[in-house]
Amino acid sequence: MGKLPVTERTSMRRLSERASYDESVVHAILDEALICHVAFVFEGRPVVLPTGYARIDDRIYLHGSAGGRFFRAMANGAEVAVDVTLLDGMVLARSAFHHSMNYRSVVVFGRAEAVEGEMKRRAIEGFVDRMIPGRAASIRPASEAELRKTIVVAIPIAECSAKVRSGPPVDDEDDYGLPVWAGEIPLILGTSDPVPDPRMKVTIDAPDHVASFRGRLARVER
Amino acid sequence: MGKLPVTERTSMRRLSERASYDESVVHAILDEALICHVAFVFEGRPVVLPTGYARIDDRIYLHGSAGGRFFRAMANGAEVAVDVTLLDGMVLARSAFHHSMNYRSVVVFGRAEAVEGEMKRRAIEGFVDRMIPGRAASIRPASEAELRKTIVVAIPIAECSAKVRSGPPVDDEDDYGLPVWAGEIPLILGTSDPVPDPRMKVTIDAPDHVASFRGRLARVER
Repeated sequence: MGKLPVTERTSMRRLSERASYDESVVHAILDEALICHVAFVFEGRPVVLPTGYARIDDRIYLHGSAGGRFFRAMANGAEVAVDVTLLDGMVLARSAFHHSMNYRSVVVFGRAEAVEGEMKRRAIEGFVDRMIPGRAASIRPASEAELRKTIVVAIPIAECSAKVRSGPPVDDEDDYGLPVWAGEIPLILGTSDPVPDPRMKVTIDAPDHVASFRGRLARVER
Repeated sequence: MGKLPVTERTSMRRLSERASYDESVVHAILDEALICHVAFVFEGRPVVLPTGYARIDDRIYLHGSAGGRFFRAMANGAEVAVDVTLLDGMVLARSAFHHSMNYRSVVVFGRAEAVEGEMKRRAIEGFVDRMIPGRAASIRPASEAELRKTIVVAIPIAECSAKVRSGPPVDDEDDYGLPVWAGEIPLILGTSDPVPDPRMKVTIDAPDHVASFRGRLARVER
């Protein structure tokens, strides 16, 4: 994996020490997060959609209802900006000004393109396996009718940057002497015990892929 | 608190049973989440920014560097779309098509306006107290120079809707007999033990507002 080019839109004029154009950094963030936010222009005005996604190779795949106005607009080649942000902590500084958050984020700019044929099916299965690795094989795959009801679009991971902040607050030198507690409160995503669908007709233990999904995140008692 | 009007942009054509226009629902989501995503049009193309925010009364306040091109554009009255999404769970259905996520989200459409004067200072303190309630009083407030280096914009919570999905998967009737584990894996945001800034010159216990912040979220062992 290599370096992504720096463009007008992905160059960071401020806090450029937080920027990364390494594909490995970008892919790691894209593969950890569970939702993205897609911005595009609809009838001249901005729209933002939170949605699941899957990275497959060097593209981000999104899917939505073929009946929805927004996905139809995207499938027609809309310019989009996709953001993925993992929140890692609250950064408590000695001054209001230097309060911050620790995070890892990626933004991808590009033109969405409609995905059809075999790649469309592969992307749809990819969504499930991206979310819950190992699950796609155990469920009913999408029917032809369901594929027709779904729009899949892809955005190339080409004009793209990652931004990462970590570590303690960075205060003004004069403020370090203030008698203020400063530091980080780490934020961690966890899962609690799975809730079986009450409509399951037979008792089935939660499969290994549920445990594996939970194993990637913290365990939380509710 | 009342009902927000339904507009062309906030009417939900699909899955409208998930929609809410109750101010109380909208405010509760805005007051729980820690970041928003702001979309706007910059030089004809979409941009999306993840950022902290504060709701004060019926406005969302954002802040950024006065040196940044995006916040300058917003302060000039840009149309924006602001999304706030809380992810509550993975929804595992019997078919690929019905996999979903449980979430609570809000989208606000509107025109950003620059905030100046006393309200600007109040918003800046609001950001800290919104993030870590009770903290603003114990830190050094923003100086005049810091206020000048910061742009604060507000977006009215007027053209706005909430969208909520909860509960088990909704499968096709024919699929309920499949021998597939189905249900929800709840996602929960937690904190782990605070990490004091190694540059604290004296030993100070983490203050009550740190414990209060953590009390609102799950506790996670790392």
